[in-house]
Amino acid sequence: MTDIKWGELAQHWLDRLAACSEPGPGVTRLPFTPEHRAALAVLTELMQQAGLAVHLDAAGTLIGRMEGPEGVPTLLMGSHQDSVREGGAYDGIMGVVLPVLALMKLREHGVTLPFAVEVLAFADEEGVRFPTALMGPRALAGTFDMTALDLQDHDGITLRRAMEDFGLNPDALPGLRRAPSQTLGWVEIHLEQGPVLAAAAQDIGIVTSICGIERHMITLTGKAAHAGTMPMHLRRDALAGAAELTLAAESLARETDGLLATVGALQVRPGVVNAVPGEVALTLEIRAPEDAMRAQAGAELTQAAHDIAHRRGLVLEIARTYAQPATPCSPQIIEGLSKTVEPSDRGGAQHMASGATHDTSAMAALCRVGMLFTACRDGVSHHPDEHVPAASMSSGITALERYLLQLQPSACHP
Amino acid sequence: MTDIKWGELAQHWLDRLAACSEPGPGVTRLPFTPEHRAALAVLTELMQQAGLAVHLDAAGTLIGRMEGPEGVPTLLMGSHQDSVREGGAYDGIMGVVLPVLALMKLREHGVTLPFAVEVLAFADEEGVRFPTALMGPRALAGTFDMTALDLQDHDGITLRRAMEDFGLNPDALPGLRRAPSQTLGWVEIHLEQGPVLAAAAQDIGIVTSICGIERHMITLTGKAAHAGTMPMHLRRDALAGAAELTLAAESLARETDGLLATVGALQVRPGVVNAVPGEVALTLEIRAPEDAMRAQAGAELTQAAHDIAHRRGLVLEIARTYAQPATPCSPQIIEGLSKTVEPSDRGGAQHMASGATHDTSAMAALCRVGMLFTACRDGVSHHPDEHVPAASMSSGITALERYLLQLQPSACHP
Repeated sequence: MTDIKWGELAQHWLDRLAACSEPGPGVTRLPFTPEHRAALAVLTELMQQAGLAVHLDAAGTLIGRMEGPEGVPTLLMGSHQDSVREGGAYDGIMGVVLPVLALMKLREHGVTLPFAVEVLAFADEEGVRFPTALMGPRALAGTFDMTALDLQDHDGITLRRAMEDFGLNPDALPGLRRAPSQTLGWVEIHLEQGPVLAAAAQDIGIVTSICGIERHMITLTGKAAHAGTMPMHLRRDALAGAAELTLAAESLARETDGLLATVGALQVRPGVVNAVPGEVALTLEIRAPEDAMRAQAGAELTQAAHDIAHRRGLVLEIARTYAQPATPCSPQIIEGLSKTVEPSDRGGAQHMASGATHDTSAMAALCRVGMLFTACRDGVSHHPDEHVPAASMSSGITALERYLLQLQPSACHP
Repeated sequence: MTDIKWGELAQHWLDRLAACSEPGPGVTRLPFTPEHRAALAVLTELMQQAGLAVHLDAAGTLIGRMEGPEGVPTLLMGSHQDSVREGGAYDGIMGVVLPVLALMKLREHGVTLPFAVEVLAFADEEGVRFPTALMGPRALAGTFDMTALDLQDHDGITLRRAMEDFGLNPDALPGLRRAPSQTLGWVEIHLEQGPVLAAAAQDIGIVTSICGIERHMITLTGKAAHAGTMPMHLRRDALAGAAELTLAAESLARETDGLLATVGALQVRPGVVNAVPGEVALTLEIRAPEDAMRAQAGAELTQAAHDIAHRRGLVLEIARTYAQPATPCSPQIIEGLSKTVEPSDRGGAQHMASGATHDTSAMAALCRVGMLFTACRDGVSHHPDEHVPAASMSSGITALERYLLQLQPSACHP
């Protein structure tokens, strides 16, 4: 079978999996639902075709295992089965299908690897149904907080109850913890969800780091006033201050390679045509591939907010509401993956940070991690139009196949 | 009676008028209501004490007339009786009380003026109850649109029905039209509704012009994107563009004496912490004492919006949704009013534009107009805390008294 045929085969399975969805546009597949159950049946069929031994663990993670020599640690691969509401057919689930097809391809060529491989389909990465996520990888890493089992979905059903109704035993979760010594590493392939690879006409990107994130809630309070009777020089216009801060964030991020800064939400009070805005509440999100870069940007923009407020006679409230450290990928895995894309491949591969969080973020608590991106059309994701060309999926399968072929257990295990 | 006593007397009458209000904080007195009726009774009592002949015209305007020599045109003074909801005790109504007290003071001193004077209390300037306003002055100027009688209030009552229930005959409105040749001019005294006089420790301002206003509805459309996966250089961030425009408007108005520019409302879509804003809708309001200045500012900011949109790859929609020309005050009346404030008065008087619209705007269609401002505490208006110190009202009464004393019918009549 030619390489492109493997991408087309991936598309076939992804089409079948996309049908495991609530009705409506795109794909809606939430954890511990009939749609999840249907997807597990399709994935089981695929994994069994590839010769993998399949089982479902207590976290709802479907695991397909290709056995290796006794005593050698296992390489873990995979991604998540769930989607956002009215999302696409690739986000997550493609990262389960492609490594299974890579293993199927190796098997077809009669290759036996010197280590075991497991492909994992985690139940919940998007966190759409419950106000938590990443239970599957956290259970493996031993970082899952059992109190999360009491969290409820929109219908008041607890996570524990949903899992039990799905046939799982949540009390067995602590027993899922893996020993780092028995794990070679974790490799995930995921669509980029951005426009960089498509713009560069490249199929594959090698992730160097998953960006850390911090979020700030900022309120600037001036004085609301009649837009006709308050002279310009006496105004304390909260929106003008917020505008300065928005541009300061954009400017700093443009000047700092790898840094992302976004003012995404902004509310104005009183918010009418003939009143000078008295209060603006806005969010500032900062992402960076290194924690030091993010911390410095947070400090600089906090200082900028103070300066703007002071100069304009505004009262500033600023609170960091969220912080998540960056996850650097393993240099050894980056090096191994770098060997998998040859100059003859379309455009080669570029090294890039991931601005979005992935299962890989949680797996980093267990073992060395690495990640590949595939191009996605127009950078669109979390939308029914989400699409990864078959050629890019073929390149992804080839890259995973070559990575598996070059991996030496002794070279990777810590 | 000393001058300050006249300000205190004004406060007494304004306290009585403030009691003519719906229950709740501050003053709520809408046109053609029991509260309006109660205020007319108090004003009638006041006008009669000043020796004025009182009647209610078909527009609901209470008119107190001091007769003058036969054949000499009449000077019109006054303001409006109505308030906004939960407004203050001075806006509008003070401009009825002070000229009546000025006439009372002249009468006490035995002065007879060489012209007739009418003090008018218009029913509706704020436009809170019906989606129209300024019926009283428009009827006098012959600019009232009779189709407005069909407009409804919140309870579905038409303006016509409300007036009829109040005992008025709306069909008589066209007959209220005054002949310009029989009108000496119009003078209104009103609180500033801004902080300029209070900041300058002055009681009185002389209005040179009522600002023209234009309003623009602006939409900037870029592309919503994941704040983690869309690199800075590929973003089409609608909010960053809107921020630039907000600062451009502020900057132009700060640099242009008399110009006011305000971005008062601004909505962001999708408006979430982790998405690059794809669309921003905002309002831009421009006010200027001269139409040419306003037109130029409108053109410059429209061009700035186009430039910003072009540079950032945003789609711009911009529509002027409202325009109202400036009302220049009569140079003769400004000169007459300028003689009324002596250097010995607290701080003298400053010439200033009015950023807000007043009954004077509509009266300009009939005759020469002029306007005085009094200081108001902290610049607060349209709020229960609205306050004009008795000393400022005394200065206002004195200014009106002096203006009446120096006015020669031949000098003012066109």
